[in-house]
Amino acid sequence: MSARVTLGIDVGGTKMLGLAVGAGDEVLAEVLVPTPGHNDTAPHPAVSERLIEALASVAEGLIAMLGSDAAVAGLGVGVPGLVDGAGVLRFAPNLRGGNGTAVRERLEARLGGLPTLVDNDATCATMGEWAFGAASGATDAVMVTLGTGIGGGIIAGGRLVRGANGFAGELGHMVVNPSGPPCPCGKRGCWERYASGSGLARLAREAAYAGRLDGVVALAGGDCDAVRGEHVTAAAAAGDAGARSVLEELGWWLALGLSNMALALDASVMVVGGGLVEAVGLVLDRVRTDFDDLLEGRAYRPAVTIVPAALGERAGAIGAALVAREGGRDRPGVA
Amino acid sequence: MSARVTLGIDVGGTKMLGLAVGAGDEVLAEVLVPTPGHNDTAPHPAVSERLIEALASVAEGLIAMLGSDAAVAGLGVGVPGLVDGAGVLRFAPNLRGGNGTAVRERLEARLGGLPTLVDNDATCATMGEWAFGAASGATDAVMVTLGTGIGGGIIAGGRLVRGANGFAGELGHMVVNPSGPPCPCGKRGCWERYASGSGLARLAREAAYAGRLDGVVALAGGDCDAVRGEHVTAAAAAGDAGARSVLEELGWWLALGLSNMALALDASVMVVGGGLVEAVGLVLDRVRTDFDDLLEGRAYRPAVTIVPAALGERAGAIGAALVAREGGRDRPGVA
Repeated sequence: MSARVTLGIDVGGTKMLGLAVGAGDEVLAEVLVPTPGHNDTAPHPAVSERLIEALASVAEGLIAMLGSDAAVAGLGVGVPGLVDGAGVLRFAPNLRGGNGTAVRERLEARLGGLPTLVDNDATCATMGEWAFGAASGATDAVMVTLGTGIGGGIIAGGRLVRGANGFAGELGHMVVNPSGPPCPCGKRGCWERYASGSGLARLAREAAYAGRLDGVVALAGGDCDAVRGEHVTAAAAAGDAGARSVLEELGWWLALGLSNMALALDASVMVVGGGLVEAVGLVLDRVRTDFDDLLEGRAYRPAVTIVPAALGERAGAIGAALVAREGGRDRPGVA
Repeated sequence: MSARVTLGIDVGGTKMLGLAVGAGDEVLAEVLVPTPGHNDTAPHPAVSERLIEALASVAEGLIAMLGSDAAVAGLGVGVPGLVDGAGVLRFAPNLRGGNGTAVRERLEARLGGLPTLVDNDATCATMGEWAFGAASGATDAVMVTLGTGIGGGIIAGGRLVRGANGFAGELGHMVVNPSGPPCPCGKRGCWERYASGSGLARLAREAAYAGRLDGVVALAGGDCDAVRGEHVTAAAAAGDAGARSVLEELGWWLALGLSNMALALDASVMVVGGGLVEAVGLVLDRVRTDFDDLLEGRAYRPAVTIVPAALGERAGAIGAALVAREGGRDRPGVA
């Protein structure tokens, strides 16, 4: 087996997906396990230790599945948060107890020196979609992953944008409405208060209390506070006008943030991924229209393509394996 | 004289500055003339012709100043608006009658085939500040030029970000407040409705009508509608608290847009240039504090430097000469 087999692990808020990717880009093995600490309600000092142990187990599981003659060249790990060039998870608000974990160093020690690179999860997903998915062939593209929050990745001039510290693509906390709802980050009106899973839940509760979502409230057992994003998506898919209207509101905010990024970066492709992609898919035509309305000078620009992610939940792990394969080229601070 | 002498012309809304830059980066000649049509109150079909003629005259003037033994390798022109890779000015809302002008082709024909490249004016200014000014040495930087509107340029991973069509860096129409004041572009709450010269005038009139700017209104002859940005800056420099408060409001919006860009691009340097730089300079410490407050995860990031442009009004013309020198490398669509 070629030495170009690399492993990629995508650390989500609730689960971790590991893949082994061969030299011909084929997926050779796959492992899915829960993320340690995802049910904890408070930061837990042992999460960091359990995270490293779980990551090592996934890597070992993949290596075992590949068989004894496998030559694994490296491991890439995508984690939610700010990751520096040394592979230290600097800030991970959605991974309780993870701040400050030296993921790279500890994994390499634990895995007998297997070359390891650690990167932001949405950055990895962008690598995956750029190499094999919806942004394939684009020189300038933006990917957003819509989950609990919003992650992002940027391709500019045929290269992944890393930033001065490897932190580029943190799009979720761009302020799009300074008088908007408060965000746990301390600001108001961050983009992810609108165009994410938590944004959808908030918009839905607002509509429920305003009496604009009676069908969905019934689905949620008659309790406005019990309305969740899944209820809205299900009702909208079944033709509920109120639910569709909430998704269109989310879609407008999505279009707003994407058009801001299109102005800054002149990207030709915008890829929408993450757990909310199904919900957005129901109103994607409307998102495209709103985007065109919002893009200054639209009549003078070639059309921008807004497409759903093609690799689904695998994008991050595939991208992490590619990060390992390319060995951190262009990554600031990687020794 | 070296064949690496190139000419750069920066086309502003009211004047055009031309420079000849030598192989050792020294400025060898300088020409300043009014921009044709800048006093027209309506689009004028002949503006395009007059623009080309004026640009050609500036170039010829510079060549004449260099002397008969000068070997000029090329001309770069920075214009306000969207410029495609073929050097056509696609959309120029602040240059009446300029839309659709094939600047490159017509200038090359007019100037006996002198190799000419045309780019956005703020992009050129960014090139200038990156090469010799406030962003010198940075791998990841953002420049904003605060004039009537807001122009921008982005350096990422040690390269100028051009975008798929050469339109990157159009930061002024990013929406930062969807319920904000209407913008001529058709949207509401564009960034340049706040953090530009026209934004300052608007914020000042609001404050004047609210009775928070009596000292400045007196400066403007007692008429709230006559209050201009220059009055506010002069009063703030003289210690007027109301005027300073208006500048701080502008500064907060400036910090908001810059922090959005810092999240997306992880830039280590933010350069503030353009005609408003003096006004912003009066509240720059406050802008820095606001920026840090607005930047998510600030405590986990290295500090971002916010600095005034170093090359002043020459940045655009110097950058245009550099664009000509590097011959459009990495520019999409440049043959």
